[in-house]
Amino acid sequence: MSKQGKLKIIPLGGLGEVGKNMTAYEFQNKILVVDAGIMFPTNDMIGIDYIVPDYEYLRARAGNVVGIVITHGHEDHIGAIHHLLNDVSAPVYATPLTRGLIEGKLARNSASTKADLNTIEAGGMIEIGPFKVEFFHICHSIPDSVGLGITTPAGLVVHMSDFKFDHTPVDNWPTDYAKLAEFSRRGVDVLLSDSTNAERPGWTPSEKVIGPAFDKVFAEAQGRVIVATFASLISRVQQVADSTKKFGRKITFAGPSMVDNVKIARKLGYLDIPDDLIVPMDQALKMQDHKVAIMCTGSQGEPSSIVGRLAAGTNRLFSLKEGDTVVLSSHPIPGNEETISRTINRLLHRGAEVVYDAIAPVHVSGHASQEEQKLLVNLVRPKHFIPIHGELRHLRRHAKLAVEVGVPEKNAVVVENGQIVILSGGNLTLGERIPGGYVFVDGDSIGETDFSIMREREKLARAGIFLIDISVDKLSGRLLHDPEIITRGFVSPEDAEALLPEVRAHIMDVVGSGGESEKDIANAVRSYLYEETGRRPMVLVTLSKA
Amino acid sequence: MSKQGKLKIIPLGGLGEVGKNMTAYEFQNKILVVDAGIMFPTNDMIGIDYIVPDYEYLRARAGNVVGIVITHGHEDHIGAIHHLLNDVSAPVYATPLTRGLIEGKLARNSASTKADLNTIEAGGMIEIGPFKVEFFHICHSIPDSVGLGITTPAGLVVHMSDFKFDHTPVDNWPTDYAKLAEFSRRGVDVLLSDSTNAERPGWTPSEKVIGPAFDKVFAEAQGRVIVATFASLISRVQQVADSTKKFGRKITFAGPSMVDNVKIARKLGYLDIPDDLIVPMDQALKMQDHKVAIMCTGSQGEPSSIVGRLAAGTNRLFSLKEGDTVVLSSHPIPGNEETISRTINRLLHRGAEVVYDAIAPVHVSGHASQEEQKLLVNLVRPKHFIPIHGELRHLRRHAKLAVEVGVPEKNAVVVENGQIVILSGGNLTLGERIPGGYVFVDGDSIGETDFSIMREREKLARAGIFLIDISVDKLSGRLLHDPEIITRGFVSPEDAEALLPEVRAHIMDVVGSGGESEKDIANAVRSYLYEETGRRPMVLVTLSKA
Repeated sequence: MSKQGKLKIIPLGGLGEVGKNMTAYEFQNKILVVDAGIMFPTNDMIGIDYIVPDYEYLRARAGNVVGIVITHGHEDHIGAIHHLLNDVSAPVYATPLTRGLIEGKLARNSASTKADLNTIEAGGMIEIGPFKVEFFHICHSIPDSVGLGITTPAGLVVHMSDFKFDHTPVDNWPTDYAKLAEFSRRGVDVLLSDSTNAERPGWTPSEKVIGPAFDKVFAEAQGRVIVATFASLISRVQQVADSTKKFGRKITFAGPSMVDNVKIARKLGYLDIPDDLIVPMDQALKMQDHKVAIMCTGSQGEPSSIVGRLAAGTNRLFSLKEGDTVVLSSHPIPGNEETISRTINRLLHRGAEVVYDAIAPVHVSGHASQEEQKLLVNLVRPKHFIPIHGELRHLRRHAKLAVEVGVPEKNAVVVENGQIVILSGGNLTLGERIPGGYVFVDGDSIGETDFSIMREREKLARAGIFLIDISVDKLSGRLLHDPEIITRGFVSPEDAEALLPEVRAHIMDVVGSGGESEKDIANAVRSYLYEETGRRPMVLVTLSKA
Repeated sequence: MSKQGKLKIIPLGGLGEVGKNMTAYEFQNKILVVDAGIMFPTNDMIGIDYIVPDYEYLRARAGNVVGIVITHGHEDHIGAIHHLLNDVSAPVYATPLTRGLIEGKLARNSASTKADLNTIEAGGMIEIGPFKVEFFHICHSIPDSVGLGITTPAGLVVHMSDFKFDHTPVDNWPTDYAKLAEFSRRGVDVLLSDSTNAERPGWTPSEKVIGPAFDKVFAEAQGRVIVATFASLISRVQQVADSTKKFGRKITFAGPSMVDNVKIARKLGYLDIPDDLIVPMDQALKMQDHKVAIMCTGSQGEPSSIVGRLAAGTNRLFSLKEGDTVVLSSHPIPGNEETISRTINRLLHRGAEVVYDAIAPVHVSGHASQEEQKLLVNLVRPKHFIPIHGELRHLRRHAKLAVEVGVPEKNAVVVENGQIVILSGGNLTLGERIPGGYVFVDGDSIGETDFSIMREREKLARAGIFLIDISVDKLSGRLLHDPEIITRGFVSPEDAEALLPEVRAHIMDVVGSGGESEKDIANAVRSYLYEETGRRPMVLVTLSKA
């Protein structure tokens, strides 16, 4: 079959991770969007709530977007859907559980009415404009995830979102190998695939290995078992519920997102938890400790989460007690290691047993490791390979793996967000470079906070501020009142007090000279403070002449 | 032999890590200090340069301190020596290399004259007041490290500082097993030991495994090889020099601490690098790329280090070029993961090959893993066990390991810094609790910055500041001039400009009401800003009435 036309592959979203939160495909000016997720800020993005992909390219072509396909229900794939739908009015396609989670998300953001949601099924196919999209089941740490086969006259692209080849998944629904083999027979022009674990040798353990680990925890626990994980790790909820039942306990859920997601997943049949296994929180707190399991959020030690508050002793509904066993069922997200470690130490300090992935297999990754990544390439046998879902270090590594198993080196293409790749005549070429960054959500503002503002915040934080208010008589040049000085985050109030006479003297020197400016005064004070304290607070001067 | 008197064991230093930077022993009012190191701040300790142990207990008893023994030359064991010697004038004992590094440290801090430095040798014994101290060689990632056998009439304590049981260390000098066995024969009352890797199963690989990894890097590198590691990882320097020689390159060192340490270690015979292997930097930069190796600091991606600056494109002496191979020969220190990952991505982006511990064995830990920790307990067979050098999570784990290999559960004692443990009559009891925290070094100040100042800095950083200066006519209550407004780290200058008319109106409302205070004005503006932007900057008001 001869190839016709040009397909643009446009990785858009992901903080340093290519195509992680959003990828778009464009054929004959019609655009198909895959995923609309958010990222959480790194530690140096001060004051930022979360990050959405910069989809200016889509906004400018809103009328051309024919559909939005969501591969699974994790925040980094659905979290920006209400932002996107604000700018782009197109039908959304998702599997039942993913759709349910999107509905919950839209309702919480008062955006339900705008959405044209459509349910698709793994194994099915639909035509969205010029795109023939085939959905096939893949395993991940949330049920009902799909990969995509996208056919246009330009060729066939296989888009693997987050996945692992789990032979014994919790829901007993393995990855659709047959479909991957079928694609291979038809001839795959481009494979895009998840690079998260490209540095991890071997094969990611099955979700099933967690079962025995939880059974052991439940068997040994003397008091309550408190399990923290991500609210969207639906499979984990099933496993904890199974152990709860096995050991004659009842389970209760805490945290709005956890409660919501469990409700949706149970309603749609993705969680098999009998009604009588679940008790409301107030009842659970009255039961004997060894009869209770509590499932909540906070596995990353976030100070505002339930586990974070238990560790700090500030949880409202219940406190930690001696004999509690706390399980942190997740792996530290890079950047969270310190917070998690501090949380573990505090929980131990308060008398809890703490179980975490370094000492028991209470968590496994949801992403394919190197052997699985190689298997995927061998199953699909694509002509071209584009690693996505990873930082540059992971993409490079993943590309090397693909080359090792037979993709020609020139056909393994590492690109960054915003770099358009064109499939045409069965070959890949680089197209134009469009904005492919991200925008910060900070309070109510979207995209207004930039790095210059964050660098100012960092500067404020480094040594605090030193603020001087001066009023000068216009005619005599004399001070009208004593300089008013306010400091924050600089030195202790007593130490600041002790510095005042000298600061005042330095101000007088400058003011006495005549023609003084706010800048002159600030410079004089800044030098003195550095000399005296070795610190460089931000010095701000307001000078009024009356 | 009957036990007499009371020995106080006093873990003092380490940020969350017990006894890491400093431990003291007290017998009949005479005090022996072991180590005097610093820690680096965690990400939430904003503006802090480094941290020293709170040794108020020693300061108050300065006349009773009979000696300071340093186990090895790493910063977290020697870094606070000039602070301690400022307050406590006692002789310092160290092995030749450790002494050399201490001398360098004191010289850099203009504190050389104060110090009474004494050289000791592994295998030797000296009496320091009532303490008979036996030094024995242990392997670690720096040569000339020692463990201590401390004998007093109260009994024998074995103090294991950072160590691993490396059968093939780079300097061919294995741990002194015979001495450990001898202690065991004599009967050890208490063993204190390094818990760093208590969560790591198995046996830490020998430093020797790094040799072939570096040989591979050198064999494959087309251009320059740039190796980053800690300046104090003297063994690593030897290994890189060996590969340099083997592959016909010349080596040059960059970074003052790296240059200093290499000089000291060569002079004392702890580095075997022929003169003609080393070239000065300016010469190295003129040589052909495949003839050069550069060794420098910055393996943790610190922005101010050489590798940090190479990644950012701001290094003064030389820049990265296509074809360079950069080796990061260290493991991320918890909290540095994000910075390191960003550095790797940037180096790749600039065209370098990057080799790091996730993809090649270019680093191994310097600390014993679980099997080594168990071996130590079995070799020494102590009556009591106190895990040190680790956070609570590691200490608990280490205590469990000791119990698994035979220490009675009640004799494995987990304590925190400042908790005195008393050895008396062959038994351990808990003594008083003294200050065991840490003090922050921030600019020139030691111990003046506290958490309240850091929380203010955090608050300043979260959404910036909004500063208003108002002058009001004392009689009429009218504004004397337009309010002056300064913002930093809040919104962009243009957005701030747009908010001004409304802010002014809100100020006028309050000022018009009469009896207005700075607090009233700040509250009104704060509410308006939150309503308008969803952010809560710190609002500061200076109000003068004239």
